[in-house]
Amino acid sequence: MLFERAAVIGIGLIGGSFALAARAAGVVGEVVGVARSERTLLEAQHVGAADRTTFDAAEAVRDADLVLIATPVAAIPDVLARIAPALPAGCVVTDAGSTKRAVMQAAGVLPPHVDFIGGHPMAGSERAGVRAARGHLFRGRTWLLTPGAARPAAISRLRAALEAIGARVVLVEAGEHDRIVARTSHLPHLVAAALCGALTECVDQSDFIGAGLRDTTRIAGGPSDVWREILLTNADEVLAALDEFEAEVARYRASLEAGDEAALTALLDAARACREGMAEP
Amino acid sequence: MLFERAAVIGIGLIGGSFALAARAAGVVGEVVGVARSERTLLEAQHVGAADRTTFDAAEAVRDADLVLIATPVAAIPDVLARIAPALPAGCVVTDAGSTKRAVMQAAGVLPPHVDFIGGHPMAGSERAGVRAARGHLFRGRTWLLTPGAARPAAISRLRAALEAIGARVVLVEAGEHDRIVARTSHLPHLVAAALCGALTECVDQSDFIGAGLRDTTRIAGGPSDVWREILLTNADEVLAALDEFEAEVARYRASLEAGDEAALTALLDAARACREGMAEP
Repeated sequence: MLFERAAVIGIGLIGGSFALAARAAGVVGEVVGVARSERTLLEAQHVGAADRTTFDAAEAVRDADLVLIATPVAAIPDVLARIAPALPAGCVVTDAGSTKRAVMQAAGVLPPHVDFIGGHPMAGSERAGVRAARGHLFRGRTWLLTPGAARPAAISRLRAALEAIGARVVLVEAGEHDRIVARTSHLPHLVAAALCGALTECVDQSDFIGAGLRDTTRIAGGPSDVWREILLTNADEVLAALDEFEAEVARYRASLEAGDEAALTALLDAARACREGMAEP
Repeated sequence: MLFERAAVIGIGLIGGSFALAARAAGVVGEVVGVARSERTLLEAQHVGAADRTTFDAAEAVRDADLVLIATPVAAIPDVLARIAPALPAGCVVTDAGSTKRAVMQAAGVLPPHVDFIGGHPMAGSERAGVRAARGHLFRGRTWLLTPGAARPAAISRLRAALEAIGARVVLVEAGEHDRIVARTSHLPHLVAAALCGALTECVDQSDFIGAGLRDTTRIAGGPSDVWREILLTNADEVLAALDEFEAEVARYRASLEAGDEAALTALLDAARACREGMAEP
């Protein structure tokens, strides 16, 4: 047992899946689930993700040695401020937000007797909410950690728990994290969404919609509120990535305007080679 | 039996799958396969897609009552010119090119005693070549036809053959076809490829590559030569679609630069609604 009692604040798909997996793996004893709606709390108990539940995050962390904040990313600073006075010494605090600089900065509010380690599990589901939680959600998936100034013993303990539930833990600096995910996750979402926006007049043309368009735009079906927060909390890096993307689009435009077969082939060949580097899991 | 003898010129994935399906459905008697490489011809006979094979397209069509040109789209005008003098009266000629205006124009070279009907099967595979051909490739898939000035009897006959192999036939004017597919197929390909191009420095960051990026860029793994031809033969419509896309990207950029939550939410909500209109098959 690595942790006696975990508080999972925001016990939805990610928080609930962690709770199920960690209890099944025997790395966490009791789980206290926190959410804002009574329905979520009832569901969390019903699916076996939480032993106890409460609306009160500060109360939930009072006797916890692990805290996972799995709320939407924009809510994390508020949660940190609320739980800061109640955290016991030696507690390991982590989160599951998709951007990390803002969270790491907000974690400055925590007392020195706890360790904060930023987290970003690279897993998800088309479905949301604790009813979609599954104990195997993180198996074989990457769980990025941005340890900041956390003590090595705390990092090792959290890492061991995540590896016990099947995740592949990778440590990365928060700024580097945000720079990379702007390009591998946030820009693709923006582009897929913009593609849908530009197609609006065509969506009734279902005879013309094939697997290619469905694949390319699939992520644009994700929850708007979650993605708004992700894009806004990482706006500078997303805008920088967008600059690079638009420069590349301009190269395609120039090759089409000029009817330049060689230039277009070079662009498509490079893109194909890049895509082939992204092995399917 | 709707057709006694079909010539399939360019007997690869699409041509071979049509041949397998049409023979199995009993709508075509004999199939003569045409390709430029001996290996392809041997494979076409080996997988049962062709009864006879030849390098000579004109010879293949001499006694055919159906001709399917399933070469890359840029090669179709040449093929049409080569077979024109050899086509027997009453022959139905069609193609499987992804753009239609250029093909319809090139079909002006055909004699008045045949009917040309442009075609675009909305089906494919990650794999290419006749060895990947499958008789069920078109089942439940849309097969677009641009009939131009073809006689109603010829259209009905081709339509019946395509429906017999499970395709859903939709008639559309060639200009309208190209306008729509520029938006539903060619622009998405360009965008996915540009996204890969912009990510080049990041592809070694495999820890950060998730299902979202893989979905969004999957089509960029397609064959460069095929896509170069598609984009260039439909360049005007692709550029117009690109204008609309870039205007939409500019709206995202403005909302991120201004930190405008409401504007970003509206954009993401509209995109999500559009995506939800593209029901998965």
